Amino acid sequence: MEKKEKIIIGLAVVAAIVAGVLHYAGANPVATFATTAAALALLAMIVGDATEQLGSRLGPGATGILQSGLGNLPELFVAIFALRAGLANVVQAALVGSILGNSLLVFGLALFLGGLKNGTQRFKSEPPRMIVTLMMLAVSALIIPTLASLLHTPAAPHINDLDIVVAVILLVMLAASTYFSIKGDSSVAPQKEEFGQAEWPLSLTIIILAVAGVGAAFVSDWFVDALQPAMATLGISEAFAGLVIVAIAGNAIENLVGIQLAWRNQADYAISVILNSSLQVALGLFPVLLLLSFVLGGSVLTFVLSPLLVVALALATLVSAVVVFDGESIWPEGLALVGLYSIIAAAFWWG
Amino acid sequence: MEKKEKIIIGLAVVAAIVAGVLHYAGANPVATFATTAAALALLAMIVGDATEQLGSRLGPGATGILQSGLGNLPELFVAIFALRAGLANVVQAALVGSILGNSLLVFGLALFLGGLKNGTQRFKSEPPRMIVTLMMLAVSALIIPTLASLLHTPAAPHINDLDIVVAVILLVMLAASTYFSIKGDSSVAPQKEEFGQAEWPLSLTIIILAVAGVGAAFVSDWFVDALQPAMATLGISEAFAGLVIVAIAGNAIENLVGIQLAWRNQADYAISVILNSSLQVALGLFPVLLLLSFVLGGSVLTFVLSPLLVVALALATLVSAVVVFDGESIWPEGLALVGLYSIIAAAFWWG
Amino acid sequence: MEKKEKIIIGLAVVAAIVAGVLHYAGANPVATFATTAAALALLAMIVGDATEQLGSRLGPGATGILQSGLGNLPELFVAIFALRAGLANVVQAALVGSILGNSLLVFGLALFLGGLKNGTQRFKSEPPRMIVTLMMLAVSALIIPTLASLLHTPAAPHINDLDIVVAVILLVMLAASTYFSIKGDSSVAPQKEEFGQAEWPLSLTIIILAVAGVGAAFVSDWFVDALQPAMATLGISEAFAGLVIVAIAGNAIENLVGIQLAWRNQADYAISVILNSSLQVALGLFPVLLLLSFVLGGSVLTFVLSPLLVVALALATLVSAVVVFDGESIWPEGLALVGLYSIIAAAFWWG
Repeated sequence: MEKKEKIIIGLAVVAAIVAGVLHYAGANPVATFATTAAALALLAMIVGDATEQLGSRLGPGATGILQSGLGNLPELFVAIFALRAGLANVVQAALVGSILGNSLLVFGLALFLGGLKNGTQRFKSEPPRMIVTLMMLAVSALIIPTLASLLHTPAAPHINDLDIVVAVILLVMLAASTYFSIKGDSSVAPQKEEFGQAEWPLSLTIIILAVAGVGAAFVSDWFVDALQPAMATLGISEAFAGLVIVAIAGNAIENLVGIQLAWRNQADYAISVILNSSLQVALGLFPVLLLLSFVLGGSVLTFVLSPLLVVALALATLVSAVVVFDGESIWPEGLALVGLYSIIAAAFWWG
Repeated sequence: MEKKEKIIIGLAVVAAIVAGVLHYAGANPVATFATTAAALALLAMIVGDATEQLGSRLGPGATGILQSGLGNLPELFVAIFALRAGLANVVQAALVGSILGNSLLVFGLALFLGGLKNGTQRFKSEPPRMIVTLMMLAVSALIIPTLASLLHTPAAPHINDLDIVVAVILLVMLAASTYFSIKGDSSVAPQKEEFGQAEWPLSLTIIILAVAGVGAAFVSDWFVDALQPAMATLGISEAFAGLVIVAIAGNAIENLVGIQLAWRNQADYAISVILNSSLQVALGLFPVLLLLSFVLGGSVLTFVLSPLLVVALALATLVSAVVVFDGESIWPEGLALVGLYSIIAAAFWWG
Repeated sequence: MEKKEKIIIGLAVVAAIVAGVLHYAGANPVATFATTAAALALLAMIVGDATEQLGSRLGPGATGILQSGLGNLPELFVAIFALRAGLANVVQAALVGSILGNSLLVFGLALFLGGLKNGTQRFKSEPPRMIVTLMMLAVSALIIPTLASLLHTPAAPHINDLDIVVAVILLVMLAASTYFSIKGDSSVAPQKEEFGQAEWPLSLTIIILAVAGVGAAFVSDWFVDALQPAMATLGISEAFAGLVIVAIAGNAIENLVGIQLAWRNQADYAISVILNSSLQVALGLFPVLLLLSFVLGGSVLTFVLSPLLVVALALATLVSAVVVFDGESIWPEGLALVGLYSIIAAAFWWG
């Protein structure tokens, strides 16, 4: 294990303990919220590293599947606790916010900063095109139930059934695209570059993964508990909290990695990491949570979004598709993505 | 005439006779519906073959015009009888369903199966791009009257006039694009590959065309008669019947050809056939029927669709445009198209 | 100064004087409207020439900034007088109409006529792609406030604040993209071709610019005064007047230049000129006028458009993006753009 990794684990342990103390002491909710958010980000990082370690023993195919399954573990816990607390709206907003944050803010910053430093960035456009096509499917899949419900079509009273059909179709697409990127035509599938890394012993890896997972579950619970009082204290609307605050907090580390890669002129890998992250939420996390919400016994999650959220998603997908499609990017395009994100966030500022 | 062609003609004669017997005997409407659908599909195939034969004598230019005119003959008859029976909603749904079925289901299956068998499929992207651009025009042309009517703009009371303006513009575009693909820059216009084919004598061709046309007219009448009782017996909603059942039944053979071509790795030709089929409906059949409906004396057809249908069309056009645009396709993209079709169909399942 | 330029200045002086006489004599409003429109077009041409002359002394960077600032001067004056006259709706419609007119009608005519004369036209697609990406941002920026207001979201009562945020973001994008096209990667930024031109003396240039500017201000006032009575006399609705008449009158000369360039097979330059013209309105003129309208004391301009206008803008942007994206165009694509423009205009014909 490298020194950097040890430091992260140490920090995560400290942050988690402090978060627990603040939670049980009933401290200022803003402080609890900030600490739990930091602890979650560090735990997410550890889960990510451990997953990669496990993957390196099992071959690239298994890594892809593991990352799909475990990579969103902390977000999954947060969402489950929030659903059980009856906060389906916040979960919905956070899921959409996670997609918007990745596809517009993080992607935009990566292209903006990468472009400023490295000039026009060129990249293999096939892998992002597949991601973008699947994103368009996923967003379409959200538009249909939303409209069916909004327009009171005959499907509106059966919206739960329609949601389940859509969720299953999205998960089939996730399985198919994961299979394809593992087994498929290697000229098209995104290739991960190798970074030299000290190997962890297998037993240690599994222990770390288990402890970090259990830790993430506890911290998620405290995070959700602190969320509403913290937002009330800060005077932030529920929609803005989910869409912007939770979404950015939940993906902070992952996002920094993408931007860093673009800065280092590894545009191919940066774009794959960032857009795949959106896709995992749209094709994986959202439908899984929707199906889970029917058995968890809290509030039921639905694909029926507020129309403004759906339109924001559609615009984000279209604009990022256009940016990706030509296989090269310039910094004003990145700035345009960030600008669109700011306008969308502004529209949800008032509560 | 080849043996295969003789068999098809034989089957069509038998199916048409059985359909007539069932119709006049007042048999089970589901059986009548299925038989008339099969007879129509076989007659459509014969009209298609005869048109091609006629075309091969008249040169490629005339073939294009003939195919535009005669290729949709059976669908035209079905639609005219349905309009006279007051089923404007079913006709509308079937026209949209025909476009969705081609652009999503058939195109998706072609890319999915073709991609599974042949790996990444590459194709000349100029001809499909022209089709896709024209499809976007056609769909835009449907969006404008629908919105004008939905939003009660000052144009709403004049919607019939607006419809006629739109229909004329679409037909001008059809004429222009047909002219272009015949006379235009041959590096851009879609090229049809030659298949060795036994020639039919001219007199026989014309007789077959005439008999098949008259037959299609009769069978269409019986098909429309059986439609509503059959759907009622099966418990299928009118919208779903038009959008899915009539649309698939009406294009079954044509669709199989497209999928077969992709399977044989003739991606260029497959894509042209499939997407052109959508375009013929949007730029040709729909506006022609709309104009005809004003003189036929049944119910009047309009471009004002249900908002969910318009959005479904817009999504289908956008997603297929993105898939086509880069000149290559992989099987998960095909699967995504099929997935989107399934979600749209599901949204119309409840009546 | 060339002979052609002297003739234009002479014509402008005559037209402005006649317009003033008609205005103060209270002549037939249609005659006044037509004369002021012609005078404005000629003055716009002179301002354009003078700006270019000034730019040629200051280097290409300054030219870009000057053209952004002064190129829309006459339109700016018309809009300001119309806002002070309480015609915010007409100003909005004229701004949107200017974008639609450029992106659909003028761009369509350029591709149609250029394609008819020169066959398939190929062009460097990077610069138009940047323009198209920024247009998508700008249109998205109009969609968000419109929807927020239409759906009565919590942001609706704060729509003026949201408008100001959007306006500032758009102006930042304008500054960034202007900076990029001056300083940026020259392989991507649009290059202006040099035309041999007789130089004007600096003092003369500044005098001409000042006189033309003051003249444009006066004529704009008379134009706005004549607008409503002229439209009433002709029986044309306010929306159609703004969207079509004012938009075409205000950009007539500029538009002819774009079409002329395409006709001469200078597709690269034609596309840059035409699409940039739309972009200047969306990223520059509209937000500047919106911000100005808060201090001018007339009616307040807003980004909240009628839904049909927003959809028309979105369709225009999407379709022109698709046409631009592949770096080549054929005449049916141009015709399709003109067709879409005609359908949109028809939808606003009834008042």
